[in-house]
Amino acid sequence: MGFTSIIKLFMPKDRVFYTLFEEVAVILTEMANIFSQAITEADESKRISLLKSLEDLEHKNDDVTHRIYVELGKNFITPFDREDIHSLATSLDDIADYIWGAAKKITNYSIATDDKITASFVVVITKSVAALNKAVRELRNMKDLRAITESCVIINSLENEGDDLLDKAMMELFGSQIDPIELIKRKDLYEILEIVTDKCEDAANVIESIIVKYS
Amino acid sequence: MGFTSIIKLFMPKDRVFYTLFEEVAVILTEMANIFSQAITEADESKRISLLKSLEDLEHKNDDVTHRIYVELGKNFITPFDREDIHSLATSLDDIADYIWGAAKKITNYSIATDDKITASFVVVITKSVAALNKAVRELRNMKDLRAITESCVIINSLENEGDDLLDKAMMELFGSQIDPIELIKRKDLYEILEIVTDKCEDAANVIESIIVKYS
Amino acid sequence: MGFTSIIKLFMPKDRVFYTLFEEVAVILTEMANIFSQAITEADESKRISLLKSLEDLEHKNDDVTHRIYVELGKNFITPFDREDIHSLATSLDDIADYIWGAAKKITNYSIATDDKITASFVVVITKSVAALNKAVRELRNMKDLRAITESCVIINSLENEGDDLLDKAMMELFGSQIDPIELIKRKDLYEILEIVTDKCEDAANVIESIIVKYS
Repeated sequence: MGFTSIIKLFMPKDRVFYTLFEEVAVILTEMANIFSQAITEADESKRISLLKSLEDLEHKNDDVTHRIYVELGKNFITPFDREDIHSLATSLDDIADYIWGAAKKITNYSIATDDKITASFVVVITKSVAALNKAVRELRNMKDLRAITESCVIINSLENEGDDLLDKAMMELFGSQIDPIELIKRKDLYEILEIVTDKCEDAANVIESIIVKYS
Repeated sequence: MGFTSIIKLFMPKDRVFYTLFEEVAVILTEMANIFSQAITEADESKRISLLKSLEDLEHKNDDVTHRIYVELGKNFITPFDREDIHSLATSLDDIADYIWGAAKKITNYSIATDDKITASFVVVITKSVAALNKAVRELRNMKDLRAITESCVIINSLENEGDDLLDKAMMELFGSQIDPIELIKRKDLYEILEIVTDKCEDAANVIESIIVKYS
Repeated sequence: MGFTSIIKLFMPKDRVFYTLFEEVAVILTEMANIFSQAITEADESKRISLLKSLEDLEHKNDDVTHRIYVELGKNFITPFDREDIHSLATSLDDIADYIWGAAKKITNYSIATDDKITASFVVVITKSVAALNKAVRELRNMKDLRAITESCVIINSLENEGDDLLDKAMMELFGSQIDPIELIKRKDLYEILEIVTDKCEDAANVIESIIVKYS
């Protein structure tokens, strides 16, 4: 049995990471879409039930993330650096946590979400998660490194948009005659939505460092 | 001199980690107990003096944590993975930091602590630290892996209780006609108490990953 | 070609890290000085333009930090542990991020900065960054380990001063009859200024652990 054949024996184990990361990317996409749908839903009980449905997806994502860690403990051969796999799993998991965290703030504080700032944040988050999904899918064959880089550049520029949105939101909030408790609610919500875009950028940075080593 | 004898020569150095982690676990247990005593103490000056006594314990814990890092730098042989020792020391130290942080918020903001939510959080924290203490003690002989796992499961479920408590607390605060500054005080306190339960879970996760590798 | 000559061939690459860390230290010193100048500037438009100038420095620092990571990926030989280089770059970058973060809060929330607490924080931060600058410069020749240790001790004690300042600030804020929105502004600003001192301490801790291994 030649060296290549021996390597191939290991391949199925190795490739499990791509499958798991793709599962995570699918869950994140679903979460971003449901979140987006929820904030424009006029019917309050439907809105709350959409937001609450994110909890199951967050748990599902925890499970897949946990499986990535377990596979990392078991597999001697990994498709890219062990620490990069760990960082990517952790940063993708953070995205799920913070989307669910934003949903909890909306329901716990009972925040109205029909404002422009929230809508703009959701557009940024949805685009960012879509670009991440694309980048994660390309990791499997590593044929189109340019497409991966492009997705990462998009995510970085969306994170800048998120920053600018937060600046604008804070200037509006503190420049208004808003009730203090309403200000606390909105400030908390906008801050956590901005963190979601940061976490997308963290994941994109890990992906970039993976392909830098690969190329 | 046989191989086993050589190994034994290293054992005393190796075992220092168990002793240090047990010292940390004792300090954390003492901190949780004093914190618990403080929040139900009716006499304000006694309450404040109990809370302030946590600072010395936090410093003491810093010292023991620092000794763990120093031993890690000196010892070639460690009882489990170096990075797991580092993570465990760091996550246990975070628990001490956040208990002391909660105590500081109570004294600096002068928050009344005779409410049900604070009492429930303290029960969760005390139980969680007790379970951690038990798990840390079992690490020394690794004879009862099931007991360690059970402690970790308990800590995970207490962290979920902490989450639910925070949700409930926020719904109550934002659903009430509370004064904004009082809301800020309570929100900050409950959030930091919930972080204590998160940090206990982080420590339990490190312990779980240690025993997974060991078994 | 002898072994020493071969080693020397690598030296220039190796020494790039000192140069890059010194660049970071210079940028941080400039940021601390501009921040310090801004908060006492009476003319509001000048004040805002000083604060906004910090963004360019923060971006410049991002670039240098990124170059450190890239060099780390390329260089087989590094002057000290790879993970220490990574941690030092990250913790120095955090200082830049949080100084810029504080500047953004001042402009976004439009906070008056002529109060004693802000002035005291700025003194602490400026001293701390100056001590860091000194410590980073000494890393290149490692001749005066005592001077490095002294700088780190100073930074640690400044971080304690920052803690005490925050305690005092919070007691004042919550003990006053301040307007809730004004309290939120000041609380946020003081908290982020205290984080700057924490991040300086984190960097000092990395430097200490580097020289412990070296000595």
